[in-house]
Amino acid sequence: MTAKSNHHWAAAALDVLRVGEGFRLADVDPHSTPGYSGSKADAQDDLAAGVDELDPLQERLFAQSRVEPASASVLLVLQAMDSAGKGGIIRHVVGSVDPQGVMLAAFKKPTKEELAHDFLWRIQQRVPTPGMIGVFDRSHYEDVLIGRVRSLAPADEIERRYDAINEFEKRVTDAGTRVVKVMLHISPDEQRERLMERLDRPDKHWKYNPGDVDERALWPQYMDAYQIAFERTSTDHAPWHVVPADRKWYARLAVQALLRETLERIDPQWPTATFDVEAEKARLAAS
Amino acid sequence: MTAKSNHHWAAAALDVLRVGEGFRLADVDPHSTPGYSGSKADAQDDLAAGVDELDPLQERLFAQSRVEPASASVLLVLQAMDSAGKGGIIRHVVGSVDPQGVMLAAFKKPTKEELAHDFLWRIQQRVPTPGMIGVFDRSHYEDVLIGRVRSLAPADEIERRYDAINEFEKRVTDAGTRVVKVMLHISPDEQRERLMERLDRPDKHWKYNPGDVDERALWPQYMDAYQIAFERTSTDHAPWHVVPADRKWYARLAVQALLRETLERIDPQWPTATFDVEAEKARLAAS
Repeated sequence: MTAKSNHHWAAAALDVLRVGEGFRLADVDPHSTPGYSGSKADAQDDLAAGVDELDPLQERLFAQSRVEPASASVLLVLQAMDSAGKGGIIRHVVGSVDPQGVMLAAFKKPTKEELAHDFLWRIQQRVPTPGMIGVFDRSHYEDVLIGRVRSLAPADEIERRYDAINEFEKRVTDAGTRVVKVMLHISPDEQRERLMERLDRPDKHWKYNPGDVDERALWPQYMDAYQIAFERTSTDHAPWHVVPADRKWYARLAVQALLRETLERIDPQWPTATFDVEAEKARLAAS
Repeated sequence: MTAKSNHHWAAAALDVLRVGEGFRLADVDPHSTPGYSGSKADAQDDLAAGVDELDPLQERLFAQSRVEPASASVLLVLQAMDSAGKGGIIRHVVGSVDPQGVMLAAFKKPTKEELAHDFLWRIQQRVPTPGMIGVFDRSHYEDVLIGRVRSLAPADEIERRYDAINEFEKRVTDAGTRVVKVMLHISPDEQRERLMERLDRPDKHWKYNPGDVDERALWPQYMDAYQIAFERTSTDHAPWHVVPADRKWYARLAVQALLRETLERIDPQWPTATFDVEAEKARLAAS
């Protein structure tokens, strides 16, 4: 019998980490572990227990959609400064569930074709279908983060986008998708250390991009852009969650908890057979 | 120190399982374990060791593509009768590698839009990009399998498709994708048992489709269609591999071996830095 993965959590991670009224990013310590009372070793056990809990929840979510076409889906949106650990979370948290139930979309610098459309054009196409767990590795928020910091669009266009995002996410949630928005919050010092490790190890050079240092120089501007995005887009239908990420083990555990709790709140059920089970047994036995 | 996953293999699975000149599907025992001398318990250890070997190979494949845009990719094509274990292989073999390096495409009954195009139209769009491991859960081969058995297209159109497939796969391999085509081969008795289990367990009902029993009735016709597909499309550039699949543990191990050996033959390398490492260290330290 496995221990429940949530026994070191004081309350639901969805509540503890939620960006609510009066939230100030500057007040969040990237090294903290809000809501979690366990140690790093506990976290390892809890992460493993969480895998065993996520698994049947995901399978039921998927199963339900095979029979009920309009059933729920989940969209996990991951945003962060470089090296904050998005990749590790996709690998170790998302990667623990059946890949057949996951739709992963990594949004890079927009292509020419993408730029010729509204900023939500490429996003809309990757919204998870019923039964699926969608994961956005970066997202439409880039268009109000780097978009704002680097003035990639006129100021009034950036302004327009916050409302456009809220309307878009409202449509998506109304259609049955639970949107879980996560910012992984690291400190500039921790980032320097992680980038330095990439430079120290030849097998990590490919992960290093000189442009990362240029963006580092704009750290305060990025934090301001995040703060504004939280104020404008942490809505009731699609709230933000800020996950301190200097400790990788905490960030992974917290995102797993957010995903698990979201699935628990959906509470998907095994669908009932749409055929006559006994009749099928007889047909099959005779075949 | 972990044992190598291939020490129970008499030779490369890519060679042992390959469909060559004079191959007859009817001669393959679905319960056999060709090339593998280990037990079921050995297979469990070897599967775990294989995960540790696949992991760095996949990461190097991916890393290389970040720096060399025209580098290699892999496409694993999975075909089988229902319940042969495609899902388990995707879950346990494909699911063991980083999801960021995997592109999974499940091809269902074609939509109206898909039917309005050539049969390869929807396939072409899902070919893996450089650095990725693509997995086709069913594929263009449906169009010469169920397509042939159920006469879903005129006979001369079906005939045309074998050559079209060969030309398509030639283009794909010439562009740097290694195509690994796998048929999971189960016996009708084993299928009956697996389908019966789905009927016996309410949490498996959603996996059961009454149509599966209808297709069972056409088993010999399907085997003929596979035999013809092998004869027409097991080419030097994209050979078929038949994996006996009555024993799930063997099928998973064999497909893992096919994937691992394919990556070993590509032999991807960590790319060299495209920037001045020491200069970047200095910039980063000062930032």
